[in-house]
Amino acid sequence: MTTGAERIMTSFDPDIRRVAHLLADAARAVVLPYFRASSLVADNKLSGGYDPVTEADRAAERAMREILAKERPDDAILGEEYGTVAGTSGLTWVLDPIDGTRGFVSGTPTWGVLIALSDANGPFYGIIDQPYIGERFEGAPNGAVLNGPHGQFTLATMTPRDLSKAIVFTTFPEVGAPEDAAGFKAVASKAQLTRYGMDCYAYALVAAGQVDLVIEAGLAPYDICAPIAVVQAAGGLVTDWQGNPAHGGGRAIAAANPQIHAQALEILKHF
Amino acid sequence: MTTGAERIMTSFDPDIRRVAHLLADAARAVVLPYFRASSLVADNKLSGGYDPVTEADRAAERAMREILAKERPDDAILGEEYGTVAGTSGLTWVLDPIDGTRGFVSGTPTWGVLIALSDANGPFYGIIDQPYIGERFEGAPNGAVLNGPHGQFTLATMTPRDLSKAIVFTTFPEVGAPEDAAGFKAVASKAQLTRYGMDCYAYALVAAGQVDLVIEAGLAPYDICAPIAVVQAAGGLVTDWQGNPAHGGGRAIAAANPQIHAQALEILKHF
Repeated sequence: MTTGAERIMTSFDPDIRRVAHLLADAARAVVLPYFRASSLVADNKLSGGYDPVTEADRAAERAMREILAKERPDDAILGEEYGTVAGTSGLTWVLDPIDGTRGFVSGTPTWGVLIALSDANGPFYGIIDQPYIGERFEGAPNGAVLNGPHGQFTLATMTPRDLSKAIVFTTFPEVGAPEDAAGFKAVASKAQLTRYGMDCYAYALVAAGQVDLVIEAGLAPYDICAPIAVVQAAGGLVTDWQGNPAHGGGRAIAAANPQIHAQALEILKHF
Repeated sequence: MTTGAERIMTSFDPDIRRVAHLLADAARAVVLPYFRASSLVADNKLSGGYDPVTEADRAAERAMREILAKERPDDAILGEEYGTVAGTSGLTWVLDPIDGTRGFVSGTPTWGVLIALSDANGPFYGIIDQPYIGERFEGAPNGAVLNGPHGQFTLATMTPRDLSKAIVFTTFPEVGAPEDAAGFKAVASKAQLTRYGMDCYAYALVAAGQVDLVIEAGLAPYDICAPIAVVQAAGGLVTDWQGNPAHGGGRAIAAANPQIHAQALEILKHF
């Protein structure tokens, strides 16, 4: 099971991987003590909505930025909590220290640390890390791997099956406007099974060959860049609902293969 | 953090605990190789619905029944897959080898192996085991503990806070009739945050002090007996929507404390 895993480890830019794992390790160490801690206090970032931001979120992003300032000073940074730092290399690290804060504050181990590296064409390397389980999903141009509690595995998306047999994940109804939800429901009503509220972990499951589709809306760039890199590295594709690049945020569909992507897009493009 | 954990280990019936952990260990060993295996085939148990039953489900229950036949031949058994075995001790082992089959078939590590021991008054000992993460939530009359990837912890439910600040979990809209869903929505609309589709793991999070309420319907006895034992052992309570015992299945509400239970029941009792 480790052929692809060994390939990614040896042939992709070793400095990018080294630094990316430093970032993920640092975020793990910072965030984990806060998870399920009774002292956890969630602020309301958006008045009227429920978008909890914790001390863990902020502390983890600071830890990652400190590493980048030292190890990759020429790269730009885009992070959820502390905005943008300009760079000169043409590369941008895109950071979301805790994606899935609703899961985090309710003790569910399906939130993740998101780390991506983008160039002008979008993200080409990414990590989705789940610190509590100890799972790290990693995608690069030459393959995707999972390092988890039961070993190391090559990630590969699911082979094609009809939408009527498909498993669809979404963050609706928690995230997205009513008109977005209508598009999602039009697809989900034709699928075998719909599951809710997994955030970045749903994309990891597409990469792991467990899920056919993820359909979301209302995304920020830092929500979707790492998922794009991991899903694409495992053989899937991620676009907006018109089939265009999704790394700018907004609406996104992640698909295990071109066939199920086309079938869902045929419905979504009308919304 | 291990005071309660040590207490439960030394003062509750050691033979019950010994056998329960034998069962949970056996189920883990049987089920785990099937999780995220590409060869996994899900049958449709109910024609028209989506209730996947896997070989893993059946094999795990057989493994647990073999242990009980040898170690506890006088106890009765009620299991999801293979029905009832009569006993003479007045005690019944209630087994659900994979609770949360929708999560299981989609690769989400929030399904669980459920093991409970009941007498005429209902379940008084239970385990919710998550084999992939390696988490075991255990409740007995003298306390509740979690053994997981980051150590051993005493479980205690959340202190009271108003419903407007509460986190509510449910399996709606996947499970339950429309009239059940209306009751759930009436409560959830007054809560801070609603999360979906966690099955038994939601009850484990009530026991772990992360979640205020779980509201469900359409349950079988084997779905709810272990959650009752674990939640009650951690200081919470589980009833039906009228405040009566829930171990017979049907509608259930699990609450972190009597105050939030009363607040939710005041709404649910009208449905």
